[in-house]
Amino acid sequence: MSPSRLDFRLEARASGSRARAATFRTLHTTVRTPLFMPVGTQATVKAQLPESLHESGSQILLANTYHLLLRPGPEVFQKMGGIHPFMQWPGSVLTDSGGYQIFSLPHSRSMREEGAVFQSYVDGRRILLSPELSIETQMAIGSDIMMVLDQCIPSTADEKAARAALQITQRWAVRSLAARKDSPQSMFGIVQGALYPHLRQESAEGLMQLPFDGFAIGGLAVGEAKQEREDTCEVTAALLPEDRPRYLMGVGTPLDVLEAVHRGVDMFDCIIPTQVAKHGTAFTSRGMVQIRRTVHKFSDRPLDPACTCSACQKYSRAYLHHLVKTQEPLGWQLMGQHNIHFYHQLMREIRQSILEDCFLKLYEEKRQILQAEDLDFPVTQERPPVISPDHGHRIGDYELQLDPGKPARIVHVTSGKTVPTEADIHQWPQAAQLALHLRLPADQSPEEATPLIIWDLDLGAADSALAAILVYEEESSKGPVRPMHLVSLTEDVSALRLALSHKRYFAYLRHGAADTVLRRGHWKSRYREGLSWTLLQGPLAAIQAQAPGPAEMILGLPETISEPISTTASA
Amino acid sequence: MSPSRLDFRLEARASGSRARAATFRTLHTTVRTPLFMPVGTQATVKAQLPESLHESGSQILLANTYHLLLRPGPEVFQKMGGIHPFMQWPGSVLTDSGGYQIFSLPHSRSMREEGAVFQSYVDGRRILLSPELSIETQMAIGSDIMMVLDQCIPSTADEKAARAALQITQRWAVRSLAARKDSPQSMFGIVQGALYPHLRQESAEGLMQLPFDGFAIGGLAVGEAKQEREDTCEVTAALLPEDRPRYLMGVGTPLDVLEAVHRGVDMFDCIIPTQVAKHGTAFTSRGMVQIRRTVHKFSDRPLDPACTCSACQKYSRAYLHHLVKTQEPLGWQLMGQHNIHFYHQLMREIRQSILEDCFLKLYEEKRQILQAEDLDFPVTQERPPVISPDHGHRIGDYELQLDPGKPARIVHVTSGKTVPTEADIHQWPQAAQLALHLRLPADQSPEEATPLIIWDLDLGAADSALAAILVYEEESSKGPVRPMHLVSLTEDVSALRLALSHKRYFAYLRHGAADTVLRRGHWKSRYREGLSWTLLQGPLAAIQAQAPGPAEMILGLPETISEPISTTASA
Ligand SMILES: [Zn+2]
Ligand SMILES: [Zn+2]
Repeated sequence: MSPSRLDFRLEARASGSRARAATFRTLHTTVRTPLFMPVGTQATVKAQLPESLHESGSQILLANTYHLLLRPGPEVFQKMGGIHPFMQWPGSVLTDSGGYQIFSLPHSRSMREEGAVFQSYVDGRRILLSPELSIETQMAIGSDIMMVLDQCIPSTADEKAARAALQITQRWAVRSLAARKDSPQSMFGIVQGALYPHLRQESAEGLMQLPFDGFAIGGLAVGEAKQEREDTCEVTAALLPEDRPRYLMGVGTPLDVLEAVHRGVDMFDCIIPTQVAKHGTAFTSRGMVQIRRTVHKFSDRPLDPACTCSACQKYSRAYLHHLVKTQEPLGWQLMGQHNIHFYHQLMREIRQSILEDCFLKLYEEKRQILQAEDLDFPVTQERPPVISPDHGHRIGDYELQLDPGKPARIVHVTSGKTVPTEADIHQWPQAAQLALHLRLPADQSPEEATPLIIWDLDLGAADSALAAILVYEEESSKGPVRPMHLVSLTEDVSALRLALSHKRYFAYLRHGAADTVLRRGHWKSRYREGLSWTLLQGPLAAIQAQAPGPAEMILGLPETISEPISTTASA
Repeated sequence: MSPSRLDFRLEARASGSRARAATFRTLHTTVRTPLFMPVGTQATVKAQLPESLHESGSQILLANTYHLLLRPGPEVFQKMGGIHPFMQWPGSVLTDSGGYQIFSLPHSRSMREEGAVFQSYVDGRRILLSPELSIETQMAIGSDIMMVLDQCIPSTADEKAARAALQITQRWAVRSLAARKDSPQSMFGIVQGALYPHLRQESAEGLMQLPFDGFAIGGLAVGEAKQEREDTCEVTAALLPEDRPRYLMGVGTPLDVLEAVHRGVDMFDCIIPTQVAKHGTAFTSRGMVQIRRTVHKFSDRPLDPACTCSACQKYSRAYLHHLVKTQEPLGWQLMGQHNIHFYHQLMREIRQSILEDCFLKLYEEKRQILQAEDLDFPVTQERPPVISPDHGHRIGDYELQLDPGKPARIVHVTSGKTVPTEADIHQWPQAAQLALHLRLPADQSPEEATPLIIWDLDLGAADSALAAILVYEEESSKGPVRPMHLVSLTEDVSALRLALSHKRYFAYLRHGAADTVLRRGHWKSRYREGLSWTLLQGPLAAIQAQAPGPAEMILGLPETISEPISTTASA
C-alpha cells in the first residue's frame, strides 16, 4: 500500500484478543489509540467548553459535514482559517462526509449516481451532495481526517440493496480521493456490506486498492442486534490492513466500545455521552447512575468517587440531581463533562492494558461493570432500557406513561386525557366517508380531478391524519383515486413530537409521513403521486389564511354535530 | 440605629451626585459597592460555572427562595450545609423572600394576614408562605443576606391598595425579624409604597424603626415608566439611612443601574444579562450587539475588543453568531459570561470613579454608550427594545411583545403569528350570524327555547369567545333572546393565561368572564340568565365527548369553507 499520511505506528497487540494500541500523527496532534471521539455536530460538543474537552483527554472531535455545510457554510470556515481556530480547538478533527445524515432523511432526498439531492433545513435550497461537494466542504472545514461520501443503508437491507450500496460507495470513494487534490488532509474509506460477510469482504478489498489513510466500518449501529453488530465488526476488522487505523462509525456505549476494541477496532465516535447526560444518566465505576432518582437527592457523594473529572471533584450528587431535575444547562454541562471523561478514562485504561499485555483481564472486569446498572442503589422495579435515542418522557403539556403490562400512553397532563395513538382504518369512523370522497368521477383522470382537501383540526399524535393517509393508500391500491391534500392546523405539536421520539411504542408511526411533516411542515408520498400532507402551526385564527381550501372534510371535529354547519353563510 | 451585622463602611460620596462607594462584610466575603448580583434562581446562574462567575468578579449571587423552597427543598440545604457548599460558590448569597414570585402568580394564590397560600408547581401541594416559613427557608438555604417577606403590588396600584400593602409588609417585617432568632444572617427590610412619595416615606420610616442590616426598594421595575421608576428610586433612596446598604430589587439594564447609582443605590440584581444572552444580545463598549445579525457571520473580531472576559479573549463573533444561530448551549454560556462580565466591569468603573470623585464625568460618558445600539454596525430599521425584565412575558409557546408606540401583542413563538386580542363586535365577522341565531322563535319564551350551543375551536386569547358574549349582551339588552351556551374546546390555554396576566394591555379582557372560565372551567353571567361559557381543556379527540351539543355555530373554523360540511353524514 501507499504510505499513510498519518504515520500510523502499531505499538502492541493484546494476547488472546485482536485489541491493539497504536499512535498516529494528524496535521495537528499525535493521537494514541484506542480512542473515543466526542461528537461536535455543529462545531461544538453539546454544552462543553473546548478547554474542558482538552483537559479530559479528547484527542479528536468529530464534526458533521452535513450540518456545517448548511450552517455556517464552507465560506465561513474559509474566512476563519478552518474549524480549529473557529472553535478554538487545539486537538484534531475528523469530519464525516454527510452520507449518514442524508440517507437518514426519510423522504426528503433523491439518490443518483452523481450524488444525493436533498433540501436544506436552513433555507429550503435543494442541494446535490456529491462526493466532490462533500470533500470540498471537508477541505474548507479543514479537518485532519476526512471521510469519503458513502451510501448508507439499513444494516438489515437485503443483499441486492447492500451490494448496490457498496458498489456506488466504491465509485464515490474513487471520486472522493480525486477531489482531495493536493490537500494534506487524510482520508478514510468506508466499508459497507450490511450484515453479509462476503459483501463486507468485497467492499474492503475494493477500498484497499485505493490509497486511503485509514478505514471505517460503516452501516452498523443502525438497527441490527448487538450480536450481529459484533460479528460483522469482527469479520470486517479482520479484513482491514494492519498498518492503518480502523474506525467503527457511530458506536456506541462504553460496553460496545470495549467489545469492538477486543475485535480489533481503534477509533470510535458516539453522541451517547452528551445525549444521555441531558437526561441525567452517568456512566460510572459503579455502574450506570440515574441522577434523577430520589435516592440521590440528599447525597453528598460525588457522581463517581473513582473519577477525576472536575464535576466529580467539585460537586455532589445532590447538586447534580437538583440541576438535572430543574433542567438547568449547568446540569447537562457537568453530566456531559463526566461522561466524556469516563469514556476517555476507559480508553486510557484499555490502551495501558494492551501496552502491558493484560487486556483480556481488563476486558473481563470491565464487561461486568459496564453492563451493570447502579450497583450502590439498585433499581428494583423493571424499567425501560436506559440508553435509547429517546428524548424525555415529557414535552410541553404531554407525558409518556409507561405502566408495566399496559400499552404506552400519551397523556395531556392538564386535563388527564389520553391522546389517541392508533391509526386503524377498520376502526376509524371516517374511513368510509373518506373512501367515498376519494372516488374519481367517472369522466375524469386523477390529473383532472379536483384535489380532495381535508382539514385536520385535532392533530394530536397524528392518529386521524395517519388513518386518512392509510385509507388513501388502500383506496389507491385498488384503482385511480382523486388526489388528496391533508392539512393539519394546530397550535401545539407537542403530543406528536413526544410520540415520534418514542416511536417504538407506537407502531402506527412507523409510517414516515409524520416524521417528515413535523420536521419540514410538508410531506409528499414518494409512491403515490397525489398524496400530500401539510402541517400549519400557530393559532387557528392566525394560520387559517394559509390553509388551502375549500375543505370537503374536516377531521377532529366533535362528533356531536348533527346538522350541516357553515361559518360563512348565515343561518 | 442598632449596629449593622454587615459592618457597612461608607468610603466615598460622589460630588454632584448621590452616588456612593462602600464596603461591607458578609458571613463569607467582603463586598465592594456599588455592585451587581447575578441571579441564580435555582442555585445556579443560567449556564454559568461558579468559577467563571467568581473570575468575572461576581461578589453576591441572588437565589430565589420561592423556587428553592419547592425544589430541592430546605431539607436538602440543611443536609448539605447550605447553598454555598451545595453549589460550590465561594462568594456571598442573597436570598429574596418569595414575595415577588407569589404575588406574580395570577390566579393561584390567596392572601391573608398570616401569609400567602399558593399551590406548588412541583407536586401540587398547597403551601402557606408566611414570613416565618420564608425566613426559615432562607435560614436553611444559609444565605448571607435574607429579605423580609413583603407584599408586592403593581407599581401602578392605587393609593388604598398601596397603603394596605405597605402596612402588611411592615407587620410581616416585624415577624420576619422575630423569625430570624439567633441566626447570624443579615436581613434587609423592603420599602413599598408604589409611586406615592408619602407612602414610600411612611414605609421607610416604619422599617427604619426595626434593626435591619440594609434596605431594599421594592415594587419597582414592574410596569411603571422609566421616569417614574427613577423618581421613586431617588425619593426613596434619600429616605434611607446613610450607614446601611441600599438595594434596588430587580433592576435592570446597565443604563438603569447607572441611573440608580447616581440616585444613591448600592446594590442591584437582574436576570437581564443571562436572559438576553440566550437570544444573542450582548452589551459592549460599542453599544448593544445582536450577534444573530448576518453582519457578524464572517467577523473574526471579538464580541467586545475592550472586554477581558474569556469569551472575548478566545472566540470570534463568527463563532458566537454560529453558536447562537444553532441554539447551542455553549452560545448561551459564552454570551452570558460576557454580559455578566460587562455588568461587573461597569460597576468596577463606577466604583473607581466614585473613589476618585469623577463619577459625574463617567456618568455622562456611560449614559451615551449604554443607550446606544450597535455603533459599529448600526441597524437601520426600527426594532423592538431588547430588554424586558418581567418574568411573565412568556407562557408556553406564547410571548408578550411590548414595542414602544405600538399596542401590546401576543405572539405564538414557533409560528411567529400574532394572536388576535380584540373583541370588537362591530368588526367581528360572525356578529350578524350570531344575532340571527339568538332570535327567539315568535311562539317561544326564552325559557322554552332550545339553547344555542356554540363551539369555539380557537380559544386563542378568547377574542372570539368574548365577542360572542358581547353580541349576546347587546342583543339581550334589546329584547328576549335564546339562551346561549358557549363551549371552548382547546388543548392550550397559554395565550389566554398570558393575556390575562397582562390584562392592563388588553382592554377587552376587563370583562370578567375570561378570568373565571380559565380559573373554574365555567362562567355564568350574573346579570343575564341565559348566558354561560364552558372551557374544556385537552386534546379535541379526548374532550369532545364532554361537549354539549349539537352545536349550531362553530367559532374559529378557517373562513375558507365554502360549502356546508358534515363529519357524520357521508358526502
Ligand atoms: Zn467524573
Ligand atoms: Zn467579553
